[in-house]
This record gives sequence, structure tokens and C-alpha cells, in this order.
Amino acid sequence: MKQITKYIEAISKPDQEIKAKALDRLANQARPAGSLGILEEVGARLASIAALHDKNIGNTLDVKLKNKFIVTCAGDHGVVEEGVSLFPQEVTPQMVENFVNGGASINVLAKHSGAIVKVADFGVNFDFNPDMPIFHKKVRKSTSNFTKEPAMSREEAIKSIYGGISIVEELMNDAALNGDRVDIIGTGDMGIGNTTPSSAIIAAFSGISVAELTGRGTGINDEMLQNKIRVIEKALHLHKPDPSDPIDVLSKVGGFEIGGLAGLVIGAAAYGIPIVCDGIISTAGALIAYELAPNVVDYLFAGHRSVEVGHKFMHQRIGLGPLLDIKFRLGEGTGAALAFQLMEAATRILAEIKTFEEVAIINAQNSTK
Amino acid sequence: MKQITKYIEAISKPDQEIKAKALDRLANQARPAGSLGILEEVGARLASIAALHDKNIGNTLDVKLKNKFIVTCAGDHGVVEEGVSLFPQEVTPQMVENFVNGGASINVLAKHSGAIVKVADFGVNFDFNPDMPIFHKKVRKSTSNFTKEPAMSREEAIKSIYGGISIVEELMNDAALNGDRVDIIGTGDMGIGNTTPSSAIIAAFSGISVAELTGRGTGINDEMLQNKIRVIEKALHLHKPDPSDPIDVLSKVGGFEIGGLAGLVIGAAAYGIPIVCDGIISTAGALIAYELAPNVVDYLFAGHRSVEVGHKFMHQRIGLGPLLDIKFRLGEGTGAALAFQLMEAATRILAEIKTFEEVAIINAQNSTK
Repeated sequence: MKQITKYIEAISKPDQEIKAKALDRLANQARPAGSLGILEEVGARLASIAALHDKNIGNTLDVKLKNKFIVTCAGDHGVVEEGVSLFPQEVTPQMVENFVNGGASINVLAKHSGAIVKVADFGVNFDFNPDMPIFHKKVRKSTSNFTKEPAMSREEAIKSIYGGISIVEELMNDAALNGDRVDIIGTGDMGIGNTTPSSAIIAAFSGISVAELTGRGTGINDEMLQNKIRVIEKALHLHKPDPSDPIDVLSKVGGFEIGGLAGLVIGAAAYGIPIVCDGIISTAGALIAYELAPNVVDYLFAGHRSVEVGHKFMHQRIGLGPLLDIKFRLGEGTGAALAFQLMEAATRILAEIKTFEEVAIINAQNSTK
Repeated sequence: MKQITKYIEAISKPDQEIKAKALDRLANQARPAGSLGILEEVGARLASIAALHDKNIGNTLDVKLKNKFIVTCAGDHGVVEEGVSLFPQEVTPQMVENFVNGGASINVLAKHSGAIVKVADFGVNFDFNPDMPIFHKKVRKSTSNFTKEPAMSREEAIKSIYGGISIVEELMNDAALNGDRVDIIGTGDMGIGNTTPSSAIIAAFSGISVAELTGRGTGINDEMLQNKIRVIEKALHLHKPDPSDPIDVLSKVGGFEIGGLAGLVIGAAAYGIPIVCDGIISTAGALIAYELAPNVVDYLFAGHRSVEVGHKFMHQRIGLGPLLDIKFRLGEGTGAALAFQLMEAATRILAEIKTFEEVAIINAQNSTK
């Protein structure tokens, strides 16, 4: 735990003076105050984060989101034995291969947003070739079936989180070799069965009934949904995860990739990098991070609101409103990748829309030409 | 009217065979069926429209949205005498100048989306220099105060619509000089007071109470809102616009730029070009077009859902769901410009995400290397 605590303690507050300055500029732009909705706050928050690294932001308010990454975290889940998913566990490594080959949904949408996809194995039930160009962070091949025993040990939970943090450091180090920074990270997931632990996690923290929080994942029918609800209720009843101890929740009903996703959020916050969470699994990871360190919220953005019902309860608990609401239910980081474009729009709005004062000057100059 | 009828009669059905083929490909991609939400239908619709001009779309399903335009239509409103807006009429020509100088919100967001902004004057209460690089489609300087007389004559209403159609033709002709097509058009508006006629239009068609349909525009207070509601009720009571006669509605309680916006939609549909409407004014124009020719809906996309309350009733009446819901209430075409990026994402999803079959082939090839 000590290796994680160091990062949590390093999380600082984004520059509130710059945020105020950004909001002031937005309010004085030549348009009705507040008329660009949620993108105004997004732009101001991004400026307040960028100011931690770039003192010039205070003068320009010009935030560049150039080096963009989606980190798609994969893992398998012992609970698939209970029939909670339409797909077999074999699909997880096949999709990891598909990500690496560039033909998956996240590859297409990340490319569209100018982002690079990085894949991480936290616990896929498959032995990947060590030369495969992914982050090899495997804790173990698949969690245990949490209707029978805890998904993982406390040590494994901490190891998965630390793995996520270390990915942030590796991305930063690679960027630094080119004299660059990591400007933004989006999270994504792959793992057959992983909406089940995600629903279990939000149920454990919120106390809201499992039936209310549990959705159809990849598209299960009514009967399978009822089974999925019973499976989660059984696990919560058996293990009684302690909501005041997020490591306890992660270890008893979580997943290795969910721990990794939590680590990405903690690492990004510690190093002052904005981080966008995707669907219900990514947000389950963000929720673990938030429960460990509520101040990660200053660096967190909700990419989209999924069809999966538990997602909105997670957003409510963390206190985030989604950028997109387009009925996605895929994961991989697809919603985060699309949100990058709106966030870049927010940075352009802040820096480039003229204030009433600037417009008056420009119009006067043109009329004297 | 005859000059408009010609275009309405020319509106054909997008290629439904190609749409079915697109939906089939989307359903067979290596991801859960339907998991990319509303972007799947958007991609299939864009392919069905593109197929009208490009026979090769049937083979590739690869729709390019390269030449993108935002057409921002400006006009003034006599009803501002009644104190319905926070801003004076002088702001309309100032903002037109700002659009031309490139410093307005729409310039920034269109640039972000790779779109070109075109500005059109349909009835601004100002004499622009004829050399100003805008579409000069002025019907008259400001509509009349519709609490006292009809906003415009039937002839003026038809002229404003025809002006919008002619802009589509001019854009197409200019593109053709470079051997290009107009791939997509987004609509936008500028005109102090123009949420008032927009609310009046949806009230006239829907019969829903004015109080339920009327919002705060640029941000008026409770007292001004009550006045705005009374103003619209007075006009509807005085003129009794006939909902079965859209030209009657436009002439009695509309605006010149709203007629222009309707013309853009009819022109785009007639020439088989997808068209994205922005906020409540743009959508009021789209609604006039829809009531004249319901089949324009095949070419229409709702860029976003505005804060302005009447907007959702317009979307419901036309039968459109919005791509974005980010609390914009600006107009100018800002929401349409941002929606372009999601629509381009939809085209990439359709063309580039591999099917299960394609993934199996690629993975097999890689494993034998």
C-alpha cells in the first residue's frame, strides 16, 4: 500500500487562479454568458491543470492537447463461470490481438481523435508472447469466481493499482525522450464479464440495490440479467466488502483491469495529467481511485454516459457530468476517444473566441482600412 | 411558390438498399451488436445519402465528409420593440462583421471541425457593403413587429425560402469549379430576438402552450420571460397562423433568416446533401421545411439539443434525436459544427471497424507470419 500512498499524497490542486482567469475570459467573450454550456467549465479546468506545468498558460490560456493516449486495460473474470456474459473468456485475448492489429473499434475512434491506443494486460487468461507490444502488467490469469472466494487478494489488488500508475510513468518517460509531455489520457477496458464486478463495486460503495444498478452488458436477456443480479447479490452477501476500505472492495468483488484503471487515474492525478474515463468499467476503476483519494476528481472527466444503468450512479457519486450521451455500451475507451474532440473544442473556445473588447478593436481596425 | 415546389418535388429517397447493407456490416463488426449507439444509424443514413451520387459507396461503404460548410443566416426582428431580448438590434450587424472577421464562436468551432463558415444576410437592419463576402439575400431590413402586423408578406416568406435554396446551389456550383461536391451543410443563425419567432412557430404547429415552449434566449430574467410569453400569445391570437399552411406560419410569426434556413434544408434535400440543424432558430427553419415537405427528414440531422425549451418539441415533431446535449444556447451553427465530428466518427465506424470474419482472417495471417 505504501507504494500507492506516495502517489496519493502527491496529488495537488490545479491552479485555481488560472481557472478563475479562464472563467473570466469566457464570460467576456462576444456571446451570451454561459452560452457554450459544459464546454466552458471543461476548458477552464483544463487550463487550471495545464498551468501546473506551463507557466505561460496564465498569459495565453491556450491549452494544447497534442499527445493523447487511450490506455485499454484487459483482464479476465472467474465469475464468467456463473453465466453472466454472452461471450466466452476466449474473446478477451482475441480482442487484445485485434487492438494490437488495429482493426477494433477503439483503434478507429482513437485515430479519428488523433490519439494513440496503448493496450495493457492486467489479468487476461492467456499467455501473450512477451514481445507483444502491450504493457505486460499481468497480476494473475483471471480473477477467482467471486461467488465462491474473493476475486483477488489485497496484495494483488494493490499490485494491479500500482501497475496502472506505472503505465502513466512509462508513457511520460517515453514522451520525455521526444521532449514531449503526456497531454491527456483516456481509459478503456476489455474483459468478458467485466460489467458484473463493475456493478458490484458501485453497489458496495453506494448501498443502492443490485437490481437497480445492474444492466445487460453486451446484451444479455431477461433471464440472464436476473441471474447476473443474483450472482452479484450472492458475492456481496458472502464477502461483505467494506465501503470505507476501497482496497477491500476491489479485492473482493473487483477485477485486475479495474485495479489498473484505478491506478491510471491516481497516476494521472499525481502527475497533473487530465484523465477521461469511458464506460462503466473504466468508471468503476475511477470510483476505486476516487474512494481512495477524492481529490482525483480535479483531474477526472467523464467521457460519456453509457446505456449500462450503473454508470449514472457512478457519475453521481464522483460528481461528474458526461460530455457525450450517445447510447454507447462498448467500452475499449471508445467514448473517451470521442470526448477528446469535445475537450479540444473546449480549449479552442477558451483561447480563440474573441472578447467583446477584442471584437471592438478588430472591427475598428477594419473600418479604418 | 412554384419556384419552391420544383425543389420539393425533386426530393428523392436515399438508397435504402445501401442503408440495409450498412446496417448489416455494423451488426457484423467485432463488437456487441448495437454497442455504438446512435452513431450506427447516423453512419448508415449518411451512406444511403452518399449512394445517390457515388455508386462505389455500395462496395466500400466509405463516406467522405470532406467539404463541410456552416451557413449562418442573419436577420432582424421587429418584435424586439416589445422588449423580448437583452441585446439591441445593432448587435446583429456587429456579429455579422465578427463572423466575417473570423473571431466569433462559430469561426472557432467550424475551424475545429474542418468546416468553412459562410454568412448570409436575409434581413439584417443594416446596409452592408455589397462587396462584403457574404451571401446577400436580404428580403427587407427587419421583419415587422408581429404583435401589430404580420412579420412579412407571403411573397417575402417565399423569397426568403428561395434565397436559402439558392445558397445551396451557389455552394454546389463553387465546389464543382474545383471538381468537388458539397458533402455536408450545417445551419446556423444570428438575429437579436430570434428565439421569439422560433417559439411562436413551434407553438403554431404543435398547439402546445406558449408558456411551455418559451425559453430565456440569451438569458432574460423571469419578468422578461413572462413578457416574451405574452408577446407570442398576442401574436398567435391576432394572426391565427394556419398550421396546415407553413408559408402562412412563416409569414405571420417567422423571420427572414428562418425562411432562409428552411430553404437551406429544402435545397439540401433536393440535391441529396445531408444537412445538420443547430439550435432552436435553425430547427424552426427545419420545421418550416418539414411541414412543407416531410421527406426532408431523410436528409436532416439534429446537431444538438439546446437549453432553450422549445427545441425538444421541435425535435419530437420532426422525429429527430440530437447528437449532442451539452447545454449550448448560442446558435450561429456552433452545435452543428461540433456534431460534424461525431458524424465523421460515424462514417469511420461504418467503413473501418472490422467484422468478426475480417478479424479472424487478419489474426490467422498474423499467426502464420
